[in-house]
Amino acid sequence: MSVKNAFYAQSGGVTAVINASACGVIETARQHPDKIGKVYAGRNGIIGALTENLIDTSQESAEAIAALRHTPSGAFGSCRYKMKSLEDNKHEYQRLIEVFKAHDIGYFFYNGGGDSADTCYKVSQLSDAMGFPVQAIHIPKTVDNDLPITDNCPGFGSVAKYIAVSALEASYDVRSMAATSTKVFVIEVMGRHAGWIAAAGGLIEDEGIPVVILFPEVEFDQEAFLAKCRQKVEEFGYVTVVVSEGTHWPDGKFLAEQGTRDSFGHAQLGGAAPVVANMIKEKLGYKFHWAVADYLQRAARHLASKTDVEQAYAMGKAGVEFALAGENSIMPAIVRTSNSPYAWEVGKAPLSEVANVEKMMPMDFISEDGFGITAACKEYLLPLIQGEDYPPYENGMPKYVTLKNVAVEKKLGAFEV
Amino acid sequence: MSVKNAFYAQSGGVTAVINASACGVIETARQHPDKIGKVYAGRNGIIGALTENLIDTSQESAEAIAALRHTPSGAFGSCRYKMKSLEDNKHEYQRLIEVFKAHDIGYFFYNGGGDSADTCYKVSQLSDAMGFPVQAIHIPKTVDNDLPITDNCPGFGSVAKYIAVSALEASYDVRSMAATSTKVFVIEVMGRHAGWIAAAGGLIEDEGIPVVILFPEVEFDQEAFLAKCRQKVEEFGYVTVVVSEGTHWPDGKFLAEQGTRDSFGHAQLGGAAPVVANMIKEKLGYKFHWAVADYLQRAARHLASKTDVEQAYAMGKAGVEFALAGENSIMPAIVRTSNSPYAWEVGKAPLSEVANVEKMMPMDFISEDGFGITAACKEYLLPLIQGEDYPPYENGMPKYVTLKNVAVEKKLGAFEV
Repeated sequence: MSVKNAFYAQSGGVTAVINASACGVIETARQHPDKIGKVYAGRNGIIGALTENLIDTSQESAEAIAALRHTPSGAFGSCRYKMKSLEDNKHEYQRLIEVFKAHDIGYFFYNGGGDSADTCYKVSQLSDAMGFPVQAIHIPKTVDNDLPITDNCPGFGSVAKYIAVSALEASYDVRSMAATSTKVFVIEVMGRHAGWIAAAGGLIEDEGIPVVILFPEVEFDQEAFLAKCRQKVEEFGYVTVVVSEGTHWPDGKFLAEQGTRDSFGHAQLGGAAPVVANMIKEKLGYKFHWAVADYLQRAARHLASKTDVEQAYAMGKAGVEFALAGENSIMPAIVRTSNSPYAWEVGKAPLSEVANVEKMMPMDFISEDGFGITAACKEYLLPLIQGEDYPPYENGMPKYVTLKNVAVEKKLGAFEV
Repeated sequence: MSVKNAFYAQSGGVTAVINASACGVIETARQHPDKIGKVYAGRNGIIGALTENLIDTSQESAEAIAALRHTPSGAFGSCRYKMKSLEDNKHEYQRLIEVFKAHDIGYFFYNGGGDSADTCYKVSQLSDAMGFPVQAIHIPKTVDNDLPITDNCPGFGSVAKYIAVSALEASYDVRSMAATSTKVFVIEVMGRHAGWIAAAGGLIEDEGIPVVILFPEVEFDQEAFLAKCRQKVEEFGYVTVVVSEGTHWPDGKFLAEQGTRDSFGHAQLGGAAPVVANMIKEKLGYKFHWAVADYLQRAARHLASKTDVEQAYAMGKAGVEFALAGENSIMPAIVRTSNSPYAWEVGKAPLSEVANVEKMMPMDFISEDGFGITAACKEYLLPLIQGEDYPPYENGMPKYVTLKNVAVEKKLGAFEV
């Protein structure tokens, strides 16, 4: 096996632990100098490959790479850019091959969610379709937890922990205030069309907190929702509402819809919380507070789940190991082997079965009334938020790393994306 | 000195560390059984005293009281209730005296902000005005950091740390996304009429993050604000905006009042962040994300400042010690004796000088252009966020305490508040 360089890039929304996967890729690759030369990172995802904007990670010290493990966000920049099919956009794939050839790249590691898996899958076909030998491995990442086959997705466990802890703390707060002031606290969470993150808010029920969850999987029923809130306030004096950004009316319109779309064509969501809070005020008269956690939730490395950090690292490491074993067109996956005590191992999913498949919450994870989670759901979620993995602090602030990101000298002409 | 019982209550918006003050009061009182009998807590603040809804804290174990130190919110319930003057509302003060007499209460510890200091001040006059001997001590607490005399207020340091860390993490996130997606991140913070919490967002500037702050102390200048945002995006590729809930137009109208409309045409109440974000989108065309931290920021015990926790505890402890020394009508205060290394000691402020005085940010803490903080401000803020003080965790969740809150038997008739 000759020595080839590797390409690694981050794609889609970043997370608290995607850099832990980068750390796993780079540290593992560095252990195999006989097979992997340099790891070139794409500046801003696949766009870095197309525009030949490569970062030479060999310029980073071992300490800087190790610090990626506790640094949130995407250290090399991410992108929202979905490549069209080979038929529709052959020149982009030809350009990729040119760049790979120019920089002697034989391994392609793409770290992202569903759309990125699709891009990675297309790249994995280059060998057969266009005669260029490249091994493409997808490293799973998404706070939405909606990739298929893998038991869960790196990034999700930390968001789940953040939402569960934040909702618990805010619920203690509203409980303190309820006698003369706020009786309803509404927190909006991410997750797009999947209610996984919203479900994590349900974990506070076992801490004695009255909680009502609005899932994207359940059509919004205003009357039933308001009745449920009133019942909780009458019983407990207060209620916490967790609303997913993807919650929608029976006609499919999002509670939060702003009418803007991102470059993948997805509706840009945000703002369901104030809609729900105002509805409660208007119909039930309760004083409310609302929060929209937005990026805070997915960037909250300060409260990461230890399990999540370990899995994110392990997926990066496994990706490299699969590549070294000759694999192509696959994604390392997390396989749960036991619930209690929780145990997992690294599995392998074919990209053909991963790309463009969205995993929804099983309906038996949602309680009969549609506003809560079941025991099965708690059994699934709890292991994923286990353990704390605090970053180091200096002068009161976490010590996150910003890499040097030294550019690799370009060898080709410009390319427009 | 005869043995008298003590009354303790929590007032106004609760914080991540007000229970640490409660812990300081109760643990210190328990060390002086020769002078202080039981500590009765008011259920929901002063309302608990007026309605004779007292909680017998002696029913709580030493472990439960110790756990208050790491539990956010108000363990006994808080209230938003400001007592009128003695002249306007004599019957309430007479009722307080009846309750104090019935339960042999000689010490009154009130834990709150400016309005609560006013209530406490009025109670401290009972001795002179109505011949009932009670020592009233105010324990400072407010995330708004706007109490006078004391260098800072317990509760603020932890919010400041939460906002600085959260803004840093979200800024790393937007920096990763900026090439093809989000270029502006807007985070709305609390603080009412004072920009202390917003200022804490400015600490991320020293971490290399471009940040624009909107203070309540500075009239909103839309043109200058947009120019500043554009300049930052052009220089750095992205910008983080920290907007205080109290930011207002020159005519005094809050940005949050300006309101956007949801997709049904309903005016959305509250939310300076979406107003600012939409303004940027409309005028500059940048893609944005926004967050409203709301209760999450003041309840975030998981990220408390160690300095803040220590000071909150110390204020409770000092309150009891001042009472034992015969003081009345005072508030323990934090006196900064050195900036570098940071050092502080316990001082004493007369309530007559605390009640109804709001401490604003000094104008020399705000940069010349009105959108940032000065070196003097950073020197003030940094010590307050020093150190971490994590709560214990169990099964992935923080182990916060919910007290038994056993009611003291009533001896008087009902009373309407």
